Amino acid sequence: LNLEVINTGTELLLGNVVNTHLAYIGKAVFPLGLRIERQVTVPDGAAIRRALLNAFPRCDLLIVTGGLGPTTDDLTREIAAELLGLPLQLDPSVEEHIQERCRRRGFAIRDRMLRQAMVPMGARVLFNANGTAPGLYLPPVETPSWASPHLFLLPGPPRELKPMFQKQVLPLLEHLVPDRAGYAMWSYRVVGLGESAVEELIGLELDAHPLLEVGYCARPNEVDLRLIGPVYLLEELEPQILEKLGPNLVGMGESLMEDVIVHALKERGQTLATAESCSGGLIGHRITNVPGASAVYLQGLVTYSNQSKERLLGVPAALIAQEGAVSGPVAAAMAEGARQVAGSDFAVATTGIAGPTGGSPERPVGTVFISVIGPDGAPEVYHECFPTDRETFKQVTSQAALDYLRRKILEY
Amino acid sequence: LNLEVINTGTELLLGNVVNTHLAYIGKAVFPLGLRIERQVTVPDGAAIRRALLNAFPRCDLLIVTGGLGPTTDDLTREIAAELLGLPLQLDPSVEEHIQERCRRRGFAIRDRMLRQAMVPMGARVLFNANGTAPGLYLPPVETPSWASPHLFLLPGPPRELKPMFQKQVLPLLEHLVPDRAGYAMWSYRVVGLGESAVEELIGLELDAHPLLEVGYCARPNEVDLRLIGPVYLLEELEPQILEKLGPNLVGMGESLMEDVIVHALKERGQTLATAESCSGGLIGHRITNVPGASAVYLQGLVTYSNQSKERLLGVPAALIAQEGAVSGPVAAAMAEGARQVAGSDFAVATTGIAGPTGGSPERPVGTVFISVIGPDGAPEVYHECFPTDRETFKQVTSQAALDYLRRKILEY
Repeated sequence: LNLEVINTGTELLLGNVVNTHLAYIGKAVFPLGLRIERQVTVPDGAAIRRALLNAFPRCDLLIVTGGLGPTTDDLTREIAAELLGLPLQLDPSVEEHIQERCRRRGFAIRDRMLRQAMVPMGARVLFNANGTAPGLYLPPVETPSWASPHLFLLPGPPRELKPMFQKQVLPLLEHLVPDRAGYAMWSYRVVGLGESAVEELIGLELDAHPLLEVGYCARPNEVDLRLIGPVYLLEELEPQILEKLGPNLVGMGESLMEDVIVHALKERGQTLATAESCSGGLIGHRITNVPGASAVYLQGLVTYSNQSKERLLGVPAALIAQEGAVSGPVAAAMAEGARQVAGSDFAVATTGIAGPTGGSPERPVGTVFISVIGPDGAPEVYHECFPTDRETFKQVTSQAALDYLRRKILEY
Repeated sequence: LNLEVINTGTELLLGNVVNTHLAYIGKAVFPLGLRIERQVTVPDGAAIRRALLNAFPRCDLLIVTGGLGPTTDDLTREIAAELLGLPLQLDPSVEEHIQERCRRRGFAIRDRMLRQAMVPMGARVLFNANGTAPGLYLPPVETPSWASPHLFLLPGPPRELKPMFQKQVLPLLEHLVPDRAGYAMWSYRVVGLGESAVEELIGLELDAHPLLEVGYCARPNEVDLRLIGPVYLLEELEPQILEKLGPNLVGMGESLMEDVIVHALKERGQTLATAESCSGGLIGHRITNVPGASAVYLQGLVTYSNQSKERLLGVPAALIAQEGAVSGPVAAAMAEGARQVAGSDFAVATTGIAGPTGGSPERPVGTVFISVIGPDGAPEVYHECFPTDRETFKQVTSQAALDYLRRKILEY
């Protein structure tokens, strides 16, 4: 079944709002075996007409978001009804809902609000728990020259759309699509290998399976290998994929590096401390994004100044003077200090030059030393260079540091 | 000039990745007087062909993202070249760049990586500072039946696309679009006032100007007031807007709270330390995102455990036992300790319950105490409750803490 999505909203095209509906709907329909084949964003107003006419001949299912509100640029309902030749009729239950909401919020009812109670003949009203404009489901209409798809008109605000989608649209879709049980999407999150290396290592071989769809997504210092196919086949292939990816596999599905680390430490009953210079707290931030991090993360030190490296971590002033604050020995001393001060099992430390200034020919902007230390108390040091903008530098530095930490934890 | 955007990427339609390119590009082109008229998302692979053919007749400018990488599903470059009838030629400078990057990162060069060095005849190479695949600008090609638009092919990963767009695409677009001098979009970033309060305070009055387009964007703990109009009018209105918004105005344009804080401290020659429990390093991360933060940010302590609050910040164990770790007195003691240990002028501290577990009837999930302290050494404490998911809680907590800090700094 061909499913398309049309998002209406001038704010999406101006860039004031990021479109999160596409990703939300894409994820929500996948378990039904449905995939969005194409998505279009058009501005508020009459542009929806051309987008609908363009999509009708191609689609079996069409989901439109936005343009159902009370203002003059909200035209989705009227244009859809006109194209399908369906007269609009006042729906008393929707009218009652709008009046009730206005009373509750102390708003005066305006005539244009009741426009939202006009429903195309034959449409099914989708109740809006968080707003006045109902959603609408319009079954296919056949004309001599074309048949319209199953058409869903949904409100634009995410907090109105999401519960409506979950509770009312998905059950309707379930009736429309043939059963696709036994089909799934599995993702493998890989670090330490580039996209083409992953393809060469395992992707081409997987691609040879006629039932399998193989895809890749490159993220900062990470590649996601995505497989869509029958569950029995995914299960059958898993052992060889795990073997080939080895320690480069961070995890599967939605699990991030920080999730993997917190869960591994929790399972082992071990603890962690961080000492960050150039990553500036981002490693601590990522670790503490994981629910339950407090059980394993004892403390984090953002030691930006030399003095704080000396005082808080016990890094010898002479070592900083001799080697420079951005150096392997200082990174190692920071990791040792962090572990000792916190009394943790593991520690990770970063020191580097995020830029845009502060570089030298010997230590250019992007230079970073990462040290990880485990229960054996012997720090390991890694020297990397990520010459990029400041925020990306911090992102990839935290990613690399967490990966070295993850590999270290795996050793125990 | 009609501008459209095509985003390719199966992961966008599956919902694994949220499309942030549309909003980024929409914002970036606005100052040139350009607006995106239509945007389409299609999967990786051959679907790009139909999307291009469909868009060509309508567009003057067409921006395509994704599908330039080394894997077999990356076909944008090949299909565009074929449609325009342009043979592909190996570009030695791109080849050299790919080899150089692989050498630097210690990756072996694979044949398929060099596909990325194949450039359609007549195309302009857009250098990729953060990846191997270059962007491409293809000037219009005329055929007997149609003329192609100015076509930009850009890489999918945001950290590759953004600097390329800023440094290379915008200057090219500037040459292509007629001058729109005298017209601008100004944003005022406001905290401490809701959207409708901002509208009542100043928005309705601004809306009465026929030359002005007024918009709002609500973000976590912040409202952006957006004005589009002639520069002379924006300048004329500025003083009264500044006066009405007063200390609730964080800054204008893209300047974030953390930028304002770092610049204010720098100007005054003063310094800052942080002590974070529930915000887990996010405040430090935001502060260190600002170039030059090292001049003012002495250190940050992520004191997640009680022990680390005692040891690192000198919070009395008895105080924690008596008041609880999540309490006003502990927040104040953390701020005092952070300032004293670092020897800084200002300090900010957070302690709270991010959830999803750990709440009690007295201190529900979302509870947070924020303390700020300045040169006079007297900590102020604020009690807030943000009952939401963990990541949003950290975001709004850091936003509130930075705002209290900002207001404190303004006093000096």
